[in-house]
Amino acid sequence: MRRLIAVATLALAAPTLAQEPEPPTPASVVAAAKPAEWTAIDPADLVVMELAPDTAGGKRTVVIQLLPPPFSQGWVGNIRTLAKAHWWDGTTVYRVVDNWVAQWGDGEDDEHKAKPLPDGLRVVPESEYVATVTIVSRDNPQKFDPMVTLLPAPDPYVGFELSSHDPQVAWVGGISGFSKGWPVALTPATPLRGGEDFVADLTAMKDGDIWPTHCYASVGVARDLSPDTGTGAELYAVIGHAPRQLDRNIAVVGRVIEGIEHLSVLPRGKGEAGVYDDPKLRVPIVSVRLGNELPVPPKFQYLASESASFAEYVRVRANRHDSFYKTPAGGIDVCNVQVPIRRVPQ
Amino acid sequence: MRRLIAVATLALAAPTLAQEPEPPTPASVVAAAKPAEWTAIDPADLVVMELAPDTAGGKRTVVIQLLPPPFSQGWVGNIRTLAKAHWWDGTTVYRVVDNWVAQWGDGEDDEHKAKPLPDGLRVVPESEYVATVTIVSRDNPQKFDPMVTLLPAPDPYVGFELSSHDPQVAWVGGISGFSKGWPVALTPATPLRGGEDFVADLTAMKDGDIWPTHCYASVGVARDLSPDTGTGAELYAVIGHAPRQLDRNIAVVGRVIEGIEHLSVLPRGKGEAGVYDDPKLRVPIVSVRLGNELPVPPKFQYLASESASFAEYVRVRANRHDSFYKTPAGGIDVCNVQVPIRRVPQ
Repeated sequence: MRRLIAVATLALAAPTLAQEPEPPTPASVVAAAKPAEWTAIDPADLVVMELAPDTAGGKRTVVIQLLPPPFSQGWVGNIRTLAKAHWWDGTTVYRVVDNWVAQWGDGEDDEHKAKPLPDGLRVVPESEYVATVTIVSRDNPQKFDPMVTLLPAPDPYVGFELSSHDPQVAWVGGISGFSKGWPVALTPATPLRGGEDFVADLTAMKDGDIWPTHCYASVGVARDLSPDTGTGAELYAVIGHAPRQLDRNIAVVGRVIEGIEHLSVLPRGKGEAGVYDDPKLRVPIVSVRLGNELPVPPKFQYLASESASFAEYVRVRANRHDSFYKTPAGGIDVCNVQVPIRRVPQ
Repeated sequence: MRRLIAVATLALAAPTLAQEPEPPTPASVVAAAKPAEWTAIDPADLVVMELAPDTAGGKRTVVIQLLPPPFSQGWVGNIRTLAKAHWWDGTTVYRVVDNWVAQWGDGEDDEHKAKPLPDGLRVVPESEYVATVTIVSRDNPQKFDPMVTLLPAPDPYVGFELSSHDPQVAWVGGISGFSKGWPVALTPATPLRGGEDFVADLTAMKDGDIWPTHCYASVGVARDLSPDTGTGAELYAVIGHAPRQLDRNIAVVGRVIEGIEHLSVLPRGKGEAGVYDDPKLRVPIVSVRLGNELPVPPKFQYLASESASFAEYVRVRANRHDSFYKTPAGGIDVCNVQVPIRRVPQ
């Protein structure tokens, strides 16, 4: 037998002798979701980037979904302005670092910048890296406004600084989950402590901060040193393990929902910080358009994170019992959940 | 200014007006580590895979470090046998899935298998996915045998199954850290609960399980459905976000310590489960040798995970205060620590 490790399609190879029904898999839960549990993505919230064809002449289209309110809307507005001005047309993907990011835009420093920015771009303050979560129902800790579906485990990135040599300090921190189909982390005003406190604080949780997380395929705004926050003209997509240390330090503005492989397979740059030292390696960007400006607006939908099927999907992903698995993990991190997104079925 | 997001080399762009010394960065901590804190890697524990040159004639060498005892030694022994038999010479990289794995070996199913396996391969039981941790010092919870340097946060993947709709269930689980320079997770026989219990259980922790984690660049043994565990002839390397659900379900046997980009940039396969449907896309493997069989054995070393510099490196990675960062995370996950490994300085 060809040896393959678990993939969604492995369900095709279910054992022929099985008498009991195969336990649910993430794919089977998604396939069984009701049509009403899928939420349409407005084409106006999509950015479609067309790279130059590959060496074999194949199309390279990257579709990015913009982050919804209350997150990062200053930068998202700038990105809409830049796309409407066709500013990215003729720019390039100029920096690729393994297990880190692929970055595009003008890619020149101020002295050599050839491409003036359009009017109307906002300077966005660092305070907009986070939003405020308002709890609407204290007797149900899983209901917030905006609605957040929580993961059943603490988030290692939502702590507070610990002294390095005191193993007696209790871990304190927050949680992560999903809001409007996006991975988020949150810190209540009252710090969460583990165990009894962890649960107690959840039910008596005060208002606090909530922010989007850096996961594989997340799109963010490249910038210089703080307090600069970037305009949105230079963007990157994550092509490796979730760099969660960037959360609350760079603006996440969206995610690649189709075509991330056109960025993740690009040669890694060998210049400073992974910039292509040979300009011939830069990948030309033919056009960047908002989805609603295209002759045929792309139609996508995501599995609503407040739906019963999404909750079941998370539970099954955290506890795999299908034939490939022997030991369910009993937990998962927010970036390994991969919110189901698909083209609208015809 | 060219806008770049944080990379190790960003320290080069420290602000010129800074009067205070720049706080430590992960790179500065590693650079300041004492020579005695670096541990040599025996070339006999390295596997060097030479792929066919790329289209520009560039060499593609992938260096893999094999996992040390007490982990996965049945499969590691098989891999040594296969390498000594030159079994992989002439095989291919035949499967690449975005944000998942690149896989190599014979790649044929039993009916068509062209390449018989060498004698002497062991059939390894699933029980060897985990080892036993023995606590040698109960008054210091950070000392184990094998030595484990613990992360200051719970690990979301070391839980026990939770009911899906009971938000009152306390999170219970274990921890992760580093043993002999490798990322590991562990579950004490007494479950850890958060908060007070979390700390209390650490100090009164009973012996339990310990196992290697699946991180970016981890190498594992592809297999068919459980209870098959694979021989080690078909291997994969992780090229995306850490697929921790595979922990304790597949044998981790090593990690790519140089040349992972030769695998991560390969075109994604479009056949079933990401296998290349066009055989011409398969990447030929010229040779696979143990490091000590090469004319010039490669010399690498890693920053010892029980060293003071490693502890400081983890602390700084979890709490970034250098110029690029505004808000330190206060925590980190075990796969985002990236154990420092380098060629032995000349």
